[in-house]
Amino acid sequence: MSKNRLMAPGPTPVPEKALLRMADTIIHHRTPQFQAVMKGVNAKLKQVFRTENPVLIMSASGTGAMETSISNFLSSGDKAIVINSGKFGERFRDICLAFGVECVTYDVEWGRAADPAQVEKLLKDNPGVKAVYATLCETSTGVAHDIQAIGKVVGATPAILVVDAVSGLTADEFLPDEWGVDVVVCGSQKGLMLPPGLAFISVSGKAKELMESSTLPKYYFSLKAALKSHGKDDTPWTPAVSLVMGLDTVLDIILAEGLDNVVSRHALLANATREAVKAMGLELFAERPSNVLTSVKVPEGVDGKALVKTMRDVEGITIAGGQSDLSGKIFRIAHLGYMDKYDTISALAGIEMVLKNMGYGITPGKGVAKAQEFLK
Amino acid sequence: MSKNRLMAPGPTPVPEKALLRMADTIIHHRTPQFQAVMKGVNAKLKQVFRTENPVLIMSASGTGAMETSISNFLSSGDKAIVINSGKFGERFRDICLAFGVECVTYDVEWGRAADPAQVEKLLKDNPGVKAVYATLCETSTGVAHDIQAIGKVVGATPAILVVDAVSGLTADEFLPDEWGVDVVVCGSQKGLMLPPGLAFISVSGKAKELMESSTLPKYYFSLKAALKSHGKDDTPWTPAVSLVMGLDTVLDIILAEGLDNVVSRHALLANATREAVKAMGLELFAERPSNVLTSVKVPEGVDGKALVKTMRDVEGITIAGGQSDLSGKIFRIAHLGYMDKYDTISALAGIEMVLKNMGYGITPGKGVAKAQEFLK
Repeated sequence: MSKNRLMAPGPTPVPEKALLRMADTIIHHRTPQFQAVMKGVNAKLKQVFRTENPVLIMSASGTGAMETSISNFLSSGDKAIVINSGKFGERFRDICLAFGVECVTYDVEWGRAADPAQVEKLLKDNPGVKAVYATLCETSTGVAHDIQAIGKVVGATPAILVVDAVSGLTADEFLPDEWGVDVVVCGSQKGLMLPPGLAFISVSGKAKELMESSTLPKYYFSLKAALKSHGKDDTPWTPAVSLVMGLDTVLDIILAEGLDNVVSRHALLANATREAVKAMGLELFAERPSNVLTSVKVPEGVDGKALVKTMRDVEGITIAGGQSDLSGKIFRIAHLGYMDKYDTISALAGIEMVLKNMGYGITPGKGVAKAQEFLK
Repeated sequence: MSKNRLMAPGPTPVPEKALLRMADTIIHHRTPQFQAVMKGVNAKLKQVFRTENPVLIMSASGTGAMETSISNFLSSGDKAIVINSGKFGERFRDICLAFGVECVTYDVEWGRAADPAQVEKLLKDNPGVKAVYATLCETSTGVAHDIQAIGKVVGATPAILVVDAVSGLTADEFLPDEWGVDVVVCGSQKGLMLPPGLAFISVSGKAKELMESSTLPKYYFSLKAALKSHGKDDTPWTPAVSLVMGLDTVLDIILAEGLDNVVSRHALLANATREAVKAMGLELFAERPSNVLTSVKVPEGVDGKALVKTMRDVEGITIAGGQSDLSGKIFRIAHLGYMDKYDTISALAGIEMVLKNMGYGITPGKGVAKAQEFLK
């Protein structure tokens, strides 16, 4: 008997209720029956995104929504600032470059948080910037950026602020309307507890105005088409019906727990993990840690890739390794979505046992006990 | 007790085995466990698409794959021929226009089939055309186009032939490699018997060469990125994991029945439906009918929209109405995917009873009896 435990920062475990909802008979999407579901989902999405702006549903991964947030607001030769502090900041930059957008990149060392004053300086030095692209939680490093402060800085300019909240939504505190975030980009397989396949994007009034002047080519990802259909609780192209049904269920689960409680739960699990990891003698990696995941430096003498592999293939616990230059140097434990204290304790227990077997000087139980202090 | 029967040309019913497979624990996509599934799926997709070319999986609806087939092969100002014989031919044209491609449209009256000689003439009149966009089954009219003959004509030129087989694949006879089709575009929610959310595209050597010179912007839909990952049984962006698992199951179901048998079954159900409909005194709409669906003219004095609505909301049988100018003028019964003779008989029985209640002079049972002659 060996269970699979998904403790990587996406895809995350899906609640059984949602799995069963998605296994129900498929219905046709151009029917009042489906539109009734969409109507409820659209209203609940605004609550969960904590925004008054429409939240559009796309059949795509989060990267599709990131592309949408570039191709629908900018024109060839436009200037944009990209805060690049990891894998997903890089992706914003790469999409800008693919679409002929002039990219002012604010390169932040991986593991560190962006400095809002630096964003302010870049905006002053580059008048005419149309949009700033930032990340709530940079999943590749575990850093949560100070979007509230960045929002204040960008809000004072004509530029729109686009935030990749693909992993951060529901885990980190995030109040887009209050903080001056114009566009929120998200995916289904993280805090929303669904399988991958849906992406989301919200659009403020300021962003809608910019949309009018955008000339970059788009069709499948056209926000104009999506907004037009959204008004009728419809979608321009065939939606991923079963995932939308699952979405209806997970949104209910999230709202029943309460948005503040969901964030607090993530914070509690993250904090317990950080303290446990320190009690194991390990070092944290992220300067300003997110509630989404805890990134930990692989200790000297331990093969970081083998650690992740053994955890997954022997213990059945999927944690994540480091990406790009961090490969083998950090490992990442998620606290994301459908997770409770015993999931966290299991992951910590597994890490202790595997590290000991790999020759790291550790007495299994030390980290777990520390976590228990917080999770009581 | 009232069951829902999905008899529209997509989304189609999903086999229970696939529904349950998709309800299994989600696994992480960057693992040897998932890559083993992808390896099998990639091999089986080539069999089901009857091609030696790689078949790439995207998280998107079929429209996303249509856009991919334009943005990855063409450059701004390039000339393309679009065979426009309905809603989905129109979509190819609209995507071309959105991307700045010069579009030579061959407008075919809705309900009629494209004339390969006309395609040949357009190719002669427009030297330098880079690609021809055609549709196997035009779902909006129920017409199956003669792709074999069109392939012969296009194959004699440097242009590539792109075929939208979103609804036609597995239902209509289709041999892309033999017929000279370079790019096949498909979706998951039709003959492949899955929920919507996956799209597919195959790429021939000739198409790969054209790809090298394409300068239209793309990122999420980049075939270069997809082909690179495909070689490692991977995907560039997070794939829709649960749908891929379901795909693994439905491909097994299709291959177990046998590709020729699957097409024959569709042909049998389509033929029985056509004969039954004629026995009811109704008139068929499509000139060269596909096995995907049967489109039927709404008889004089009957409200076509009310017919579709009553079938769905009272009888629980979802058929489709007409789109655009055909709204209210035709109705469409699918034979697509996970369907057998009793599904067809149920749909016909329902139509007879609803038509009678709507005042159309019909003795219920006549059409059903005719279908039974063929379905024995």
